[in-house]
Amino acid sequence: MALAKLGILISGRGSNMQSIVRACRAGDVPAEVAIVISNRADAAGLVWARGHGVPTAVVAHADFDDREAHDRAIVEHLFNAEVDWVCLAGYMRLLSRAFIEAYPMRILNIHPSLLPAFPGLHGQRDAFEYGVAVSGCTVHLVDLELDHGPIVVQRPVMVGGCPDAEALADRILVEEHRAYPEALRRLLGEPWRLEGRRVVFGSSTG
Amino acid sequence: MALAKLGILISGRGSNMQSIVRACRAGDVPAEVAIVISNRADAAGLVWARGHGVPTAVVAHADFDDREAHDRAIVEHLFNAEVDWVCLAGYMRLLSRAFIEAYPMRILNIHPSLLPAFPGLHGQRDAFEYGVAVSGCTVHLVDLELDHGPIVVQRPVMVGGCPDAEALADRILVEEHRAYPEALRRLLGEPWRLEGRRVVFGSSTG
Repeated sequence: MALAKLGILISGRGSNMQSIVRACRAGDVPAEVAIVISNRADAAGLVWARGHGVPTAVVAHADFDDREAHDRAIVEHLFNAEVDWVCLAGYMRLLSRAFIEAYPMRILNIHPSLLPAFPGLHGQRDAFEYGVAVSGCTVHLVDLELDHGPIVVQRPVMVGGCPDAEALADRILVEEHRAYPEALRRLLGEPWRLEGRRVVFGSSTG
Repeated sequence: MALAKLGILISGRGSNMQSIVRACRAGDVPAEVAIVISNRADAAGLVWARGHGVPTAVVAHADFDDREAHDRAIVEHLFNAEVDWVCLAGYMRLLSRAFIEAYPMRILNIHPSLLPAFPGLHGQRDAFEYGVAVSGCTVHLVDLELDHGPIVVQRPVMVGGCPDAEALADRILVEEHRAYPEALRRLLGEPWRLEGRRVVFGSSTG
């Protein structure tokens, strides 16, 4: 079976990008990372990717008049690299409709809470301040609503003993680095389908 | 240390009531169940409680003009039984403000989801249909908003492999029967305080 080609979008350190690259190279995910794209030239993850022989591109949003034009330039890079699946890994930009429709149900995002609880920019802090005893992380397919699409993988994280939101964020990050490869492994390696908004794995012989 | 006295409110089978009674008698929770009150005379849990030597009362809501009068009658039973803590265990009635203020931060409820996700009457079904991969149960202090008060204990439940919402509900129920005794054990046996809406266990020597 040919390996799927992944494109990973980052804005910063890209620690989830690193976990995906490592999982692909270890053979845990049947894919290769064809390109890493950042919207910021100074994203630390670019240095890591180059150092590990992963092709990179910078498509700076400041160079474009609007979100759609920026997204078109990114999609062009993805198409040129023959990318099958797009992974958002700390990419701090909303995607336009045109981007999402260029890769329908083929864009993944990771979020540091158990969605639908605590969407938005501050999932860890919001969960901590709410006082939940269980939080976690979510890998989901991207649709037109923020932090909303069908859920592929969630991993729970116990909050007990965390003195602050940063400690909780650290615990969640450990599980993020497991969840993203797990989601890719399952989506690429198992039959799956959508029932309503549920991602159901396994053949539909029921 | 004197045992705390619990009053448990039920409307049906009261399986969580049973788990609390068992945990108290096993010495896992430093409390005794002083009274079980049902708003329905035909609640199956009443038979179980009587069979296990637990005092019971029926305060049928149909016998009262309004929620406040019904709640006043229940609180009178609780006061007469010298109840310290009230546990809702499948009690299918909203509590009035007067009831809640009679036992401020001394009323517990259990809910079959990881609050704040999926409040309301159908926590298991709503979570299943949303397609979460992790759900669970929540024991929380009761405040004036439904399924909203400070969280004491949550236990996660993996959804994977559940063919339907009923199967998920069964899995969650197993954890409910662990969560309610755990919450009581901690609240009655450890120092705790509220910080904002977070329940923080341990002495505040930090």
